[in-house]
Amino acid sequence: MSNTIGVFDSGFGGLTVLHELLNSLSTHEGAVARYVFLGDTARLPYGSKSRRTIARYAAESARYLVEQQGADFLVIACNTASALALDAIQESVKVPVLGVITPGAAAARAASKTGDVLVIATDATVQSHAYTAACRAHGLRVIEKACPLLVPLVEEGWTHHPVTAEVIRIYINELLAHADDEGMQPDTLVLGCTHYPLIRGLIEKVVPAGVRVIDSAEATAAEVAQQFFDVKTSAVLKKVEAQLSVAPELAFFATDSVEKFERLGSRFLGHATGPVQLVDLGG
Amino acid sequence: MSNTIGVFDSGFGGLTVLHELLNSLSTHEGAVARYVFLGDTARLPYGSKSRRTIARYAAESARYLVEQQGADFLVIACNTASALALDAIQESVKVPVLGVITPGAAAARAASKTGDVLVIATDATVQSHAYTAACRAHGLRVIEKACPLLVPLVEEGWTHHPVTAEVIRIYINELLAHADDEGMQPDTLVLGCTHYPLIRGLIEKVVPAGVRVIDSAEATAAEVAQQFFDVKTSAVLKKVEAQLSVAPELAFFATDSVEKFERLGSRFLGHATGPVQLVDLGG
Repeated sequence: MSNTIGVFDSGFGGLTVLHELLNSLSTHEGAVARYVFLGDTARLPYGSKSRRTIARYAAESARYLVEQQGADFLVIACNTASALALDAIQESVKVPVLGVITPGAAAARAASKTGDVLVIATDATVQSHAYTAACRAHGLRVIEKACPLLVPLVEEGWTHHPVTAEVIRIYINELLAHADDEGMQPDTLVLGCTHYPLIRGLIEKVVPAGVRVIDSAEATAAEVAQQFFDVKTSAVLKKVEAQLSVAPELAFFATDSVEKFERLGSRFLGHATGPVQLVDLGG
Repeated sequence: MSNTIGVFDSGFGGLTVLHELLNSLSTHEGAVARYVFLGDTARLPYGSKSRRTIARYAAESARYLVEQQGADFLVIACNTASALALDAIQESVKVPVLGVITPGAAAARAASKTGDVLVIATDATVQSHAYTAACRAHGLRVIEKACPLLVPLVEEGWTHHPVTAEVIRIYINELLAHADDEGMQPDTLVLGCTHYPLIRGLIEKVVPAGVRVIDSAEATAAEVAQQFFDVKTSAVLKKVEAQLSVAPELAFFATDSVEKFERLGSRFLGHATGPVQLVDLGG
């Protein structure tokens, strides 16, 4: 048992999930020896691509993390890949795989009193209706909206910019009008894209009072903590904790421009990534 | 001689170049039997990727157009690929290859009286400094600016939206301030991205009076008309014209979601594309 958690995203956004993992697993830090993060930056963004293409890219990336980097637990820290390729990834590797959709929907269920939930995400995530399916399985009513300008605005660094605030206002108002047309009383908004936590402040200013904002990254980290430790006996856990009282090792891989990854990654991770290694998946 | 012009882009934007080709070559239409357009949509956007990756993708795409589709002249209707991969493409095929940078720079030279030129483009095009090199070769002074939000705004369909106007105003004002700091008196602005012709109206509203806007797509089409017919003798040309008095055939290929290509492509082409065929380049 290598105690390595593999974290996969098409780009940098999944570093917000890794950030939450580092936070929420810190009480058990001894048990996670190593995090390996792979950003498939040569082929991003997945959000505008087809299910077939996303499934192929994601499965190749997952196999790299398991077969080359020894991951024994995989977190798909990408809403689009979770929505469109979780089955393909689970078929391609033999370790447990957790996406961000199911934990996000479960957190929405825990947060919502009215049972009416809103989701904002990329085009491909919305078109997959994965959040709708996951939320309905919890008895929730849900409306999803694609917000394709938010990722580029975050990547431009306009995370506190009036233009970003205006774009969010337009998207959220369209979403609220749609919910109103459906006779819904939404009290929960799920951030269905790993870039959105960086503009959570602007989003919270626009949503009406009484609507709670749920971050799938946080919800996923909590679920990983649960599942990762469930698969180990406490005897093993105690032994590992005794051996490994230091902070876990972090390793970063990208399929394109490691300089850009190092430069932008710190925004999402909350601190510097350190050196990033280039990987060729042959794509 | 198959009289087939291959047109390549990472996505849909290059359809603005094809649109101009169809316009400017219409007087010689009999000589072009067929246009084959390939959008490498599975791997777009190129604008945020590294030179090595872009060169590999573009060379694969160029070979497909020449070897599989019989193109005997290639137009690289993508500023990023022209800026970063023209050499790699020229090495990978044996037919003439024309990018959009050189014609754009030549058109700026023809338009500018002060000799001071501004260029707006994607990140990767700007970082390549290809426009700077091409403009300097004409004795022009030039400042380039990356405008990464403009492509997503065009793709969101906000081509007449106040948010797009505001983003353009911010970018252009930063560019003008920079030019002023350098003591330049720019009278020409080059649209160094094939998406920008769709927001040319908004851009022309923001630029000061006396600054002329140059579209690389138009300039490239004029140059293709010149080069394509230069390589043929007029005897051959007359014979071909006699044989082919009908409009040229158009064929469209994409490496991802043909539905999306058909849906969005018409915005760039100016009319419906008709059926698009899916191509697997193995990436």
